[in-house]
Amino acid sequence: MTSATDIQRYHTAAVELADEARRIITPALERGFIVKTKADRSLVTEVDQAIERRMRDLLDRWFPDHGVIGEEYPPTRPDSPFQWILDPIDGTEEFVNGIPTFGAMLALHHRGVPLVGLIDHAALDVRVHAGVGLGAFRNGQRIRLVDAAVDQHADQVRLALSARINFTRQIDEGRLFETLTRLYPNHRIYRAAYAHTAAVTGAVDAMVDMHNHVWDLAPSRVLIEEAGGVYEVVRDFPAADGARLLSAVFGKAAVVERLVAVFRASPV
Amino acid sequence: MTSATDIQRYHTAAVELADEARRIITPALERGFIVKTKADRSLVTEVDQAIERRMRDLLDRWFPDHGVIGEEYPPTRPDSPFQWILDPIDGTEEFVNGIPTFGAMLALHHRGVPLVGLIDHAALDVRVHAGVGLGAFRNGQRIRLVDAAVDQHADQVRLALSARINFTRQIDEGRLFETLTRLYPNHRIYRAAYAHTAAVTGAVDAMVDMHNHVWDLAPSRVLIEEAGGVYEVVRDFPAADGARLLSAVFGKAAVVERLVAVFRASPV
Repeated sequence: MTSATDIQRYHTAAVELADEARRIITPALERGFIVKTKADRSLVTEVDQAIERRMRDLLDRWFPDHGVIGEEYPPTRPDSPFQWILDPIDGTEEFVNGIPTFGAMLALHHRGVPLVGLIDHAALDVRVHAGVGLGAFRNGQRIRLVDAAVDQHADQVRLALSARINFTRQIDEGRLFETLTRLYPNHRIYRAAYAHTAAVTGAVDAMVDMHNHVWDLAPSRVLIEEAGGVYEVVRDFPAADGARLLSAVFGKAAVVERLVAVFRASPV
Repeated sequence: MTSATDIQRYHTAAVELADEARRIITPALERGFIVKTKADRSLVTEVDQAIERRMRDLLDRWFPDHGVIGEEYPPTRPDSPFQWILDPIDGTEEFVNGIPTFGAMLALHHRGVPLVGLIDHAALDVRVHAGVGLGAFRNGQRIRLVDAAVDQHADQVRLALSARINFTRQIDEGRLFETLTRLYPNHRIYRAAYAHTAAVTGAVDAMVDMHNHVWDLAPSRVLIEEAGGVYEVVRDFPAADGARLLSAVFGKAAVVERLVAVFRASPV
């Protein structure tokens, strides 16, 4: 088991990584940047790459025995029990188009168990961060989620959802998108890290996030659990590239329970 | 026809109204505010009401013969050819929950034709504003939309949509939500004025906005048209309260054309 002192130290390191990312992204937002299209047709910018390189440099210096998994570069030290999981800009398409919901997502996992999680929105000046046993924070202020009423009317439930394209990536669960949007018609779709932050802070009651790589979800469990909410993995598929394709529901317990029941009633 | 000088004057007045709204909303965002539930179960705050009262006071002083239609108070001078249309906080539910996509929406219409439109996002420090013949601006910088490619792949079209609950308000067009989300799976749903701003600035290719009161759409036509895009009313129903329930598609011409065809093929 990792000591509270160590978790405190890793949490501080995550905050410093996010500060460093802001030093790179803030001037880029002002002066502009170069956009490239990756082999899978997704976008990447010189900014994503510069931030991930800088984070990897710092982590190699601070924790030379820890591994790093990131979206833009190959894994380092994949056998280490400690793995930093980095997505320097989640929502690159939004970043490129000037929509402020993108964010950096950082986490440290120990043998697959999240110890520290952080999501940073440079354009919104909003950061959520948490460490196991330390609590969850929004810009340094403690978050304490209040559970939703068990009998909250479905029209009133504030749900953040993945877009339909995420429901049909590799495995077609498009019908589940229809079921969820009919049952919970008061939904938001952000296609970026902000959806997670909204769930962590209680700005929405829950999030359903479909068919993700590990780095798209890595900080969210510890953030939600330390804020007083719950996090459930509802799908775990092997992806075409050999990685895992994960789906999770997280947020206020009473709402997550209802959503998990929808998944159970909708086998793939 | 209204002179260019007058349109310039009305545009300046709209910008001053938005500045005044920021003076009320910015301290409220910091210190908090009281939330009430209206008879139709929607939310209103003392801030919505204070902003609309202040705007009405200024308009009465500046343009004593102009009418005012607002979300929170009864119309004044409904027979005037000039009508200011105000929604002090579009997306009150987001405002109350700390999501920064809410915005003030202002417009001046002359015999139903929009002359001036403005959307102001205090929490994002983003404002779009336009006057007929003056151009459209984002924070004072001219906006010039570049049209989408006619053969842009449907998966690549960036669409902002109303939530499903808006498609079923009073008239049930839920199947159209399914059709649109299947055809254009790369969609965002904001449930607030920011969706319009994203279309006006080209951050999304187009917006489909369903079953609205007049104040939810009043600034968008002049904003989009002056930015170089197109705006089409696709549904116009009499609403239960005697008002009109309007639906519109707006944004880049090539994408709007494809979306309007979907509406034509989906009769109510």
